[in-house]
Amino acid sequence: MANCLVAQSGGPTAVINASLAGVIRANQLNPVYEHVYGGINGIEGVLADKLYDLTNLPGRDIEILKQTPSSALGTCRYKMKRGQEADFKRVVEVMAAHDIEVLFYIGGNDSMDTVDALSEWAAANGAPQRFVGIPKTVDNDLVPVDHCPGFASAAKLANQIVHATYLDYAAYTRPEVFITEIMGRDAGWLAASCCVCGNVDLLILPEKPFDKEAFLAQVQKKIAEAGECYIVISEGARYADGTYISAGESKQDDGFAHAVLGGAGQTLKQIIVDSGIVPRGLVQDLSRATRSSNFAQSAVDVSEAYELGMSAHARSANPAFTAQVVGVQREMVDGRYNAKFFAGPASEFANFVKHFPEEWILPDYQGITEEALDYFRPLIEGEPKLVYENGIPATLVPFNQR
Amino acid sequence: MANCLVAQSGGPTAVINASLAGVIRANQLNPVYEHVYGGINGIEGVLADKLYDLTNLPGRDIEILKQTPSSALGTCRYKMKRGQEADFKRVVEVMAAHDIEVLFYIGGNDSMDTVDALSEWAAANGAPQRFVGIPKTVDNDLVPVDHCPGFASAAKLANQIVHATYLDYAAYTRPEVFITEIMGRDAGWLAASCCVCGNVDLLILPEKPFDKEAFLAQVQKKIAEAGECYIVISEGARYADGTYISAGESKQDDGFAHAVLGGAGQTLKQIIVDSGIVPRGLVQDLSRATRSSNFAQSAVDVSEAYELGMSAHARSANPAFTAQVVGVQREMVDGRYNAKFFAGPASEFANFVKHFPEEWILPDYQGITEEALDYFRPLIEGEPKLVYENGIPATLVPFNQR
Repeated sequence: MANCLVAQSGGPTAVINASLAGVIRANQLNPVYEHVYGGINGIEGVLADKLYDLTNLPGRDIEILKQTPSSALGTCRYKMKRGQEADFKRVVEVMAAHDIEVLFYIGGNDSMDTVDALSEWAAANGAPQRFVGIPKTVDNDLVPVDHCPGFASAAKLANQIVHATYLDYAAYTRPEVFITEIMGRDAGWLAASCCVCGNVDLLILPEKPFDKEAFLAQVQKKIAEAGECYIVISEGARYADGTYISAGESKQDDGFAHAVLGGAGQTLKQIIVDSGIVPRGLVQDLSRATRSSNFAQSAVDVSEAYELGMSAHARSANPAFTAQVVGVQREMVDGRYNAKFFAGPASEFANFVKHFPEEWILPDYQGITEEALDYFRPLIEGEPKLVYENGIPATLVPFNQR
Repeated sequence: MANCLVAQSGGPTAVINASLAGVIRANQLNPVYEHVYGGINGIEGVLADKLYDLTNLPGRDIEILKQTPSSALGTCRYKMKRGQEADFKRVVEVMAAHDIEVLFYIGGNDSMDTVDALSEWAAANGAPQRFVGIPKTVDNDLVPVDHCPGFASAAKLANQIVHATYLDYAAYTRPEVFITEIMGRDAGWLAASCCVCGNVDLLILPEKPFDKEAFLAQVQKKIAEAGECYIVISEGARYADGTYISAGESKQDDGFAHAVLGGAGQTLKQIIVDSGIVPRGLVQDLSRATRSSNFAQSAVDVSEAYELGMSAHARSANPAFTAQVVGVQREMVDGRYNAKFFAGPASEFANFVKHFPEEWILPDYQGITEEALDYFRPLIEGEPKLVYENGIPATLVPFNQR
């Protein structure tokens, strides 16, 4: 009997480990593979032959794994580039050495591209190894899924913090603006989702060029009307010429040729204070807490992430199943949200960015349409019953630290 | 039958409304007062005669009020200064006009000073009005209590975010530091509490002068030993000469003659990167989310805040009870934490800052002692069962917005 390998890549989420748990548990329920190995630190660990045997992870640990944030196997940002023959050969070599038939790769669009590239290479070189993608991303920017595991929990935390900080802000009489900055390099899904709680006065998305004067006019209006203005800004918000609002802040390269962003909120505050509309502003940058919010997991998100892991495992029993990614589509049953599971070619997931739809954006930074709210609402409902230890949700010791 | 008045002041917390709920509920259980009025926006609202009748708030609303963060009555930073006769006269006038016998003031040490000053003024001017303090502060810097309502929930959230972001950070192989900045102007209680989760490598408190070279040596050591270094810094951390680490960041005045801080984490990151130890660092500033974390309330904190409200109400039935503040002391019963309620003179609570004890600080930024951990642990244990609406904890519409 052959073995399988699971690895995680890219930025962690609150539920990426639930997908890992799903693969492990599915194999305990139906042992398609003799061993389920975990690749330590993504493809880097595979290249370095660093594997961890997860086959017999106890049921209690699997439950705790579902509520452990971040990537329990460790992650990487190393990109397998087409044409780097040595890397492709090495992955297949390591897999062959351990009799590994299938690699499940949990990640975002870059990782789905890796699944596609590995499958392509294997087909072209007569290698029997197969490659299956399990999507995750807090950015929710993957096509062709309805949404992506990791996003809903991030959106739920964001709404909880926006609502709580709005109430904190609204308790004061002094004139000031409140700005919450949230992740979203190219797609404004997370920022837009913050409107669900009903406390966002103005919303700045990367999808709409930022017009400073038009925006300041809206701030002025909100302050004049209600004495307050709660603003949510996506880290990737930019001017018409493509310059990020955060430009001027120091940048670090994350090795993937994307600019590392940060500071849009602080820069925006300065713009508003300089305009003289209000003398002060407060900035809350949700930063990393957004994506690792295991204390604010969405029940829908955890279930879907777990079940996508199970689905990938079960589908992989078909020896023709390769270069595929599993995903969720939405169907409405009696007016209620229902997840429909499917699988599609990795090439359709890779290297595309699904933007927040133009037609869901209200003019003048006024937020999003009812249709958009209806899209978000069912995703953030429901709270899993968490196991606590010492006042915080219990977590597993990461496998890359064992 | 006379009436009473409750108002809230200073920075909100996750449980300041639980104390308000306690006063309202206690009067429903034993109607010592005909009406329980809420002062809108603290003493500002009292001066402006803006009151809201809370007497018959339904039981369900009282329960939701306990999980509503921020100050549901609104808050203020207006300070009643001794000698400003007009203000003192006006407060007593407004109280007399509404037949209000007792003012319950929920706030930090500045507010406890207001309780003291008002009581003093009333005694000196033969006014029969009485003044009672109910403490709150996320900073935990009040004497002579064991701890202060609001602190434990902030500490619980901080531990959840530190643990989650640590796991996120630890999933990567690249060399970088992670820095979490947290509130604490003059006292490092909140920053120190982050050590409970066990993920803090280095801790910078305002209580110990920051020595750049000594600190960098420790960063170097942690990176060399484990390849990682998770740092928690208090916003009020400073050099031996009193200069804040955050100095250089623009400051705004909050009207209370304290400097408004922010940016210690970013500044520290720059210091570390400039030193060449690691090429990059990540900064998470917990900012306002720290104190309004209704989704991460500590059960102990909610109970004690609520019961302190009840205790203040019950004790105030004694016509000699004035210029007093209620509080919690700690007793250990069979080795387990137990809250002991007491009341003491407002003058003992006012205008003192209780620092994190020197003897609980480990040398070389290594965190805190076991004794300190034992102090924190029981405070952050337990989670109240929250009522959710639309994916976030249900909250009441603030009374200052009705």
